[in-house]
Amino acid sequence: MARILITSGPTRQYLDPVRYVTNASSGRMGAALATAALELGHEVVIVSGPVTVDYPAGATVIPVVTTDEMLQAAVETFKQCDGAIGAAAPCDYMPRQIQTQKISKTGKPLTIELVETADVVATLGQNKRGRDRGDQPLADDRSPRRQWVVGFALETEDQRFRAIVKLERKHCDLMVSNGPSAIDAADNEVELLDPDGNVIEAIAGDKEHVARRLLAQIQQRLISS
Amino acid sequence: MARILITSGPTRQYLDPVRYVTNASSGRMGAALATAALELGHEVVIVSGPVTVDYPAGATVIPVVTTDEMLQAAVETFKQCDGAIGAAAPCDYMPRQIQTQKISKTGKPLTIELVETADVVATLGQNKRGRDRGDQPLADDRSPRRQWVVGFALETEDQRFRAIVKLERKHCDLMVSNGPSAIDAADNEVELLDPDGNVIEAIAGDKEHVARRLLAQIQQRLISS
Repeated sequence: MARILITSGPTRQYLDPVRYVTNASSGRMGAALATAALELGHEVVIVSGPVTVDYPAGATVIPVVTTDEMLQAAVETFKQCDGAIGAAAPCDYMPRQIQTQKISKTGKPLTIELVETADVVATLGQNKRGRDRGDQPLADDRSPRRQWVVGFALETEDQRFRAIVKLERKHCDLMVSNGPSAIDAADNEVELLDPDGNVIEAIAGDKEHVARRLLAQIQQRLISS
Repeated sequence: MARILITSGPTRQYLDPVRYVTNASSGRMGAALATAALELGHEVVIVSGPVTVDYPAGATVIPVVTTDEMLQAAVETFKQCDGAIGAAAPCDYMPRQIQTQKISKTGKPLTIELVETADVVATLGQNKRGRDRGDQPLADDRSPRRQWVVGFALETEDQRFRAIVKLERKHCDLMVSNGPSAIDAADNEVELLDPDGNVIEAIAGDKEHVARRLLAQIQQRLISS
């Protein structure tokens, strides 16, 4: 049995007390992955942005709002986990300044400077145990096992190429490549990529089916190995 | 019996195919107003942004995404209505340019120019039948009756003053003033203001209670009069 961190849903980056930048991530892929992991007998902790999806009762859910909150909760949770699946779509830009009062309309354009947020999956990948010790699990049973990280890449163009670049940059063990049609949809169509850039499996169907296939691959390649 | 347009929920203004500016409006106030109006025997058409709330089965729902879509649907629907309640929180700024591909992170800040969207309630107020004919219903039964518009003002400071300014500018018959704690909450605390700036009623409680009190006031002052 493994203890698995799943990040899920969107995050929000507020401009003022009312308005924010976000995306339409629904948490459905995260919920389906959690269900599939529980079915295999694993323990699941979900760090989730604001969603209305129902997560499975067997999972522990830590709710967050911003990307920085997701990062903090994920890093803290990951310490006690064997691996992480980054199914969330954290907002990757945030306003440089947050207005404390609602911005009033003046009739004139409003210029907003956005800066990049920290990258949740990249931070987990950089800090995973055993990253620099090669691909073999540690021989000493008293040592914590090597941790693994599976990322998701959502791109509108050059999907596979960009997913491979992200896999490498974020130190992921596997990368799931999908497109914008995945967002807030019942179905998904993904390619699962290994660190050599090979397509291990192409999976299409409802998110429950996709999640079960992904977990079967993770089980075989990262948990049982 | 009246035919009532209710706008409800948030709208989204996309920066690219994935990211957008929005707010946390849940559509609960709109759903509660629709239920209260149906209970009084009225006909209800809801123009709603993307929400997960359940609208009452007796209402017709027209789904929209952007503020411009909400404006078009509301203006078209309003032609066949006696009055409108603007409970939506339309996103009032939109990016001047929408990128057709997902914006890639570069490590550098991203400057976005936002311009104001059209104002849905102000447009309904400006175009309502009978606006320049005084406060009396038209005497001729064959003429369409004078239309009415009730707005919502959500402010973080100077709430009542700003609500009165909005009532006048948007040619509303009544204005509901509330604060940011209303957003995505089960409860609300509002003041109902008339065109002279008087507080007709202060209402606090769950949104179903607030909606029934607001509809009772609308019934007495705008529908039965």
